[in-house]
Amino acid sequence: MSSNSKIPVGVLGATGMVGQSFVKFLENHPWFEMVWAGASDRSAGKLYSEATQWRLDGAMPARVAALTVQPCEPSPQAPKLVFSAMDASVATEIERAFADAGHLVVSNSKNHRMESDVPLLVPEINWDHLSLIRIQRERRGWKGGIATNPNCSTVALTMGLAPLAQFGIAKVLATTMQAISGAGYPGVPSMDIMANVIPFIGGEEGKMEIETQKILGRLAGDHIEPLPAVVSAHCNRVPVVDGHLVAVSVSLEKRLTREELLAAYENFTAEPQRLGLPSAPPKPVLYLHEDNRPQPRRDALRDNGMTVTVGRLRECPVLDWKFVCLGHNTIRGAAGAAVLNAELLKAQGFLD
Amino acid sequence: MSSNSKIPVGVLGATGMVGQSFVKFLENHPWFEMVWAGASDRSAGKLYSEATQWRLDGAMPARVAALTVQPCEPSPQAPKLVFSAMDASVATEIERAFADAGHLVVSNSKNHRMESDVPLLVPEINWDHLSLIRIQRERRGWKGGIATNPNCSTVALTMGLAPLAQFGIAKVLATTMQAISGAGYPGVPSMDIMANVIPFIGGEEGKMEIETQKILGRLAGDHIEPLPAVVSAHCNRVPVVDGHLVAVSVSLEKRLTREELLAAYENFTAEPQRLGLPSAPPKPVLYLHEDNRPQPRRDALRDNGMTVTVGRLRECPVLDWKFVCLGHNTIRGAAGAAVLNAELLKAQGFLD
Amino acid sequence: MSSNSKIPVGVLGATGMVGQSFVKFLENHPWFEMVWAGASDRSAGKLYSEATQWRLDGAMPARVAALTVQPCEPSPQAPKLVFSAMDASVATEIERAFADAGHLVVSNSKNHRMESDVPLLVPEINWDHLSLIRIQRERRGWKGGIATNPNCSTVALTMGLAPLAQFGIAKVLATTMQAISGAGYPGVPSMDIMANVIPFIGGEEGKMEIETQKILGRLAGDHIEPLPAVVSAHCNRVPVVDGHLVAVSVSLEKRLTREELLAAYENFTAEPQRLGLPSAPPKPVLYLHEDNRPQPRRDALRDNGMTVTVGRLRECPVLDWKFVCLGHNTIRGAAGAAVLNAELLKAQGFLD
Amino acid sequence: MSSNSKIPVGVLGATGMVGQSFVKFLENHPWFEMVWAGASDRSAGKLYSEATQWRLDGAMPARVAALTVQPCEPSPQAPKLVFSAMDASVATEIERAFADAGHLVVSNSKNHRMESDVPLLVPEINWDHLSLIRIQRERRGWKGGIATNPNCSTVALTMGLAPLAQFGIAKVLATTMQAISGAGYPGVPSMDIMANVIPFIGGEEGKMEIETQKILGRLAGDHIEPLPAVVSAHCNRVPVVDGHLVAVSVSLEKRLTREELLAAYENFTAEPQRLGLPSAPPKPVLYLHEDNRPQPRRDALRDNGMTVTVGRLRECPVLDWKFVCLGHNTIRGAAGAAVLNAELLKAQGFLD
Repeated sequence: MSSNSKIPVGVLGATGMVGQSFVKFLENHPWFEMVWAGASDRSAGKLYSEATQWRLDGAMPARVAALTVQPCEPSPQAPKLVFSAMDASVATEIERAFADAGHLVVSNSKNHRMESDVPLLVPEINWDHLSLIRIQRERRGWKGGIATNPNCSTVALTMGLAPLAQFGIAKVLATTMQAISGAGYPGVPSMDIMANVIPFIGGEEGKMEIETQKILGRLAGDHIEPLPAVVSAHCNRVPVVDGHLVAVSVSLEKRLTREELLAAYENFTAEPQRLGLPSAPPKPVLYLHEDNRPQPRRDALRDNGMTVTVGRLRECPVLDWKFVCLGHNTIRGAAGAAVLNAELLKAQGFLD
Repeated sequence: MSSNSKIPVGVLGATGMVGQSFVKFLENHPWFEMVWAGASDRSAGKLYSEATQWRLDGAMPARVAALTVQPCEPSPQAPKLVFSAMDASVATEIERAFADAGHLVVSNSKNHRMESDVPLLVPEINWDHLSLIRIQRERRGWKGGIATNPNCSTVALTMGLAPLAQFGIAKVLATTMQAISGAGYPGVPSMDIMANVIPFIGGEEGKMEIETQKILGRLAGDHIEPLPAVVSAHCNRVPVVDGHLVAVSVSLEKRLTREELLAAYENFTAEPQRLGLPSAPPKPVLYLHEDNRPQPRRDALRDNGMTVTVGRLRECPVLDWKFVCLGHNTIRGAAGAAVLNAELLKAQGFLD
Repeated sequence: MSSNSKIPVGVLGATGMVGQSFVKFLENHPWFEMVWAGASDRSAGKLYSEATQWRLDGAMPARVAALTVQPCEPSPQAPKLVFSAMDASVATEIERAFADAGHLVVSNSKNHRMESDVPLLVPEINWDHLSLIRIQRERRGWKGGIATNPNCSTVALTMGLAPLAQFGIAKVLATTMQAISGAGYPGVPSMDIMANVIPFIGGEEGKMEIETQKILGRLAGDHIEPLPAVVSAHCNRVPVVDGHLVAVSVSLEKRLTREELLAAYENFTAEPQRLGLPSAPPKPVLYLHEDNRPQPRRDALRDNGMTVTVGRLRECPVLDWKFVCLGHNTIRGAAGAAVLNAELLKAQGFLD
Repeated sequence: MSSNSKIPVGVLGATGMVGQSFVKFLENHPWFEMVWAGASDRSAGKLYSEATQWRLDGAMPARVAALTVQPCEPSPQAPKLVFSAMDASVATEIERAFADAGHLVVSNSKNHRMESDVPLLVPEINWDHLSLIRIQRERRGWKGGIATNPNCSTVALTMGLAPLAQFGIAKVLATTMQAISGAGYPGVPSMDIMANVIPFIGGEEGKMEIETQKILGRLAGDHIEPLPAVVSAHCNRVPVVDGHLVAVSVSLEKRLTREELLAAYENFTAEPQRLGLPSAPPKPVLYLHEDNRPQPRRDALRDNGMTVTVGRLRECPVLDWKFVCLGHNTIRGAAGAAVLNAELLKAQGFLD
């Protein structure tokens, strides 16, 4: 596909940290080309390169640097497909305005995740939830729609659980060790986190608990019936740059052997792999057999950060099984998650 | 008490990292004075200052620097009270030889912890287990005896649970985030842990699970009946210098309110405080009410590293309650723990 | 001296990070007692404990926690001796108002450091510069006066050079590796400094270059004649919590042997030691003979953070000699520096 | 070029950390294919995957994993071109044996760097030194030869100086802040470097001083006349994973303006770029205009780690100019450097 024939896309909140992750992740995307950058009124009218303090490794992509930043308002120039990297304080109204005006808003913001008619997607788990967009259109009169991805730590947890979902997940106890990049920029002061752990991330535990139930839930006509599993999260910030590690204990409805569970991990594949979506990793959940893996610095970036790695599966004296899993928080847990959602939308015909 | 009237003590394995922690912790001790340093044959005969690469902050205490290192064999010159900081590979035989020869061996090594007639002490929890030393004497014919302290992460966990023990602990799920100093020197390569987490510490999970049951167990004549609670541990190494943080979920036999539990923390005090032991912290378990505490770098050293701090008590959807606790691993979890045990021995008349 | 007979002192800007360092450093001071806390109008009227987010290790001193914060205005209740931990944006006017009203302002702020009639003190080097306060009084009509301490990295550098000053310092090239605590709170974002170095600290290089010349300069009646040495600084931020390390190359007027220089370090002592000032370290500049010292985490806190350590003296192919030196930036380079200055003022009769 | 038509290469010392860097760097090389892995007798005969504890990020390349490790002896099966990642303790004899047997040994080891007939190459600076290989053949009777690359910190320094060499470099004072990966595995203990700086790296300062003179020197028939500049190095280890940062002050023979120097950086290009060598970065020395760059974590990996970045050029009060430069130590300073040297050998016809 030549550059000209790519699907034009926009990014709302393009100058912030999450926005920059979108810019970087989209840089050489085979289907999408970022042609439109929206940001606050303070930035609108400037060149992207002037409006943006680039915080990511390497250089700002030249093509995006030359875009003129637009206000976050629907307009004929804004592409049909827009990613939302907006701050929660402003995302609700703006995302709705775009959806109403016919745009497909693929959002990383938390604002609409738990609305009954909004899909909270992890395409390897619940791609069928996407059909909720049709309910939005009926119910809200929107011409476009909103699809969301989960909180960054929830993605790692639910992907780690995905191969076990077939056995009936009853109880989940998850303790996270989360990277600093999850807090954006300036984010966590170095005086707080250097050679330290902060055993608290505001709002995170609640998000992990309810989002997990919705993601693993069942599409029931016009809404999702959450999985009736109890989920408990302990969230901690650790001095790691990228990659959220989760220590998980889980109870299953069914009694299984370790070999059966390892086989479930080994054989796990899903809709994005079957569809050959460009950002879908070959093995979405990769089990590592070394006794001290996965590790954030060494494993978070596998397959461009889209693979969730799992290891150390063993019996748990309190629940049934315990293991660790790891996901790249700004890629699999944010920009990459949203782009994969958009690829699914495209594959399902929503962009036609 | 003038210097001359202090009780002379020795340290077995005095030149290693744990041994150095003993040297430092004993530096200005009001009751004990370190007059004897034992180490391997390679070091014996040298000055302590020549035999030792000092790895701790600050300077080597001058008085100990001038000691001539002795072989690790019982002798009339070795003090009655000896601390053992020996490596597990050699501790078994040497500790037994000293106990047999009439020495009280207060050991930080794991070797004897789980023997049925050896007390595994956290004086705030199970000071009465000390009487097992009399069983050792009867059964093994020793004139002295061995008392042990737990693994460093077990101390933090059991102290954090101690105020709740009165309500009946049924299930414990603990996820640790452990400091690098717990692995000694050279210990963890920086290439493994910098900006990273290692979700594995060899042997640690098993130790936490069984030691916790013994510590919280009940003295039953000539042995300890372990607490019949199920305990599950996830152990992780994080890039922190000192202080093991533990995220804990717990089920209790009794239904209580958060206020009742906070009152239990508030009112907790124990035998070492009643006896006024010099290393006993004023509040052995200190509950911190800020929502993001305790933190290793900021809280591990409270009261010279002997206080265990607790915070974030809240309901757990899977078990009953969750909280975090923190203990200084090389002090409360090693040298300081052993010295407090020795103070208890003294207070109980074992040194008379 | 009983608590009642201590000299009452105040702290301007007491609720910020530097102010907190003063609170902590003064906690058990034998001469001074902090009885007055000044801060911005936003904080005035509140209890110190309410107005202050405590960022330092350990707990807030109880006695200060109970003080009611006052506005930063001279008043009969404000003690004669006040420390200034104020932000540069407001320090100029407030410090002058206090000096005018008869207070002795011992300031850590940069605002007055380079004024011709204000002493920029490192008491081990230029205690005699203190007499400039009399010039202030004559020239400005103040009843009190202002004394300042240098920028945190300048203190480490000038103390490291102090024993060599007798040989005539001609050229100095200093490359710093500075701790994050030097940037206050929230200070350096962790996304910028974790596992990274930032080769830039705004304004720091210029400050090091001119402050060094003034400190090592000569009192010439009503002003200081700066040392006519050329000084060049490279300033870098490194992921260290406390302690500024400086790699120094220096040319001297006189040709000397390494032994002569080591003897100069060995024999160095100064006025604060002769006067027995309570915060004066026994050896203000301590030469460490190990080949890999000083190191920030291991050496910055020696003698309560007031000793500057030096090591690795060797010939420099470009200038004459090279060495490294280290000072604790928030203690020897800020709060402790100011308190030592105040002790000197007291010893010189300025508080009578 | 299809895989079959690639030039076969071997790696001596393939299982160690530096060897692994070669394996990774060569993974998708357009000219070379690694078909032979040599290691110590302990490893010989095993599969590479069995003999190697993989320490780098991501997974071990599958094709190399399946190689059978060979002893480090010349043999008909060993390719003509071999890279040496051997430890200095064994490299001398083995490299000579291979050179004698007709192999071109492109070595990262320090052993032969300073021999008068061995080129110490930074291809952007002294590609013509390569002709020394002919002297080796004449003088030593070798059928092959040895080419070396400098110490990792020397590469960053000399590349940063390269655009200025035309103006006559007279004096260089360089202070390094070096990453932990430079010390191999297990390398620096985390207890030594976490939140700390170690102001010492054994042997490093001497290497930087003499290697710089040889690299910037002039080919004079059968040897290199070293640049008659004085060079002084301060070497420090900092808690950074990859990337050696160097703060440099330099005196030039010629007086220039900052604009002239910036133009020299802007216009710098060299032989590898003209030859289009596959590992040659488009801009070998990239000047970054932001005031706080280059930074190791953000800039070391530019252009696959082969670009050296420079910034903060400003006047130096002691020498003439100061700046910072940064190179990726395990790529541009080791494996990538050697591969670029091999590409130059190929382009110069030495592999024909």
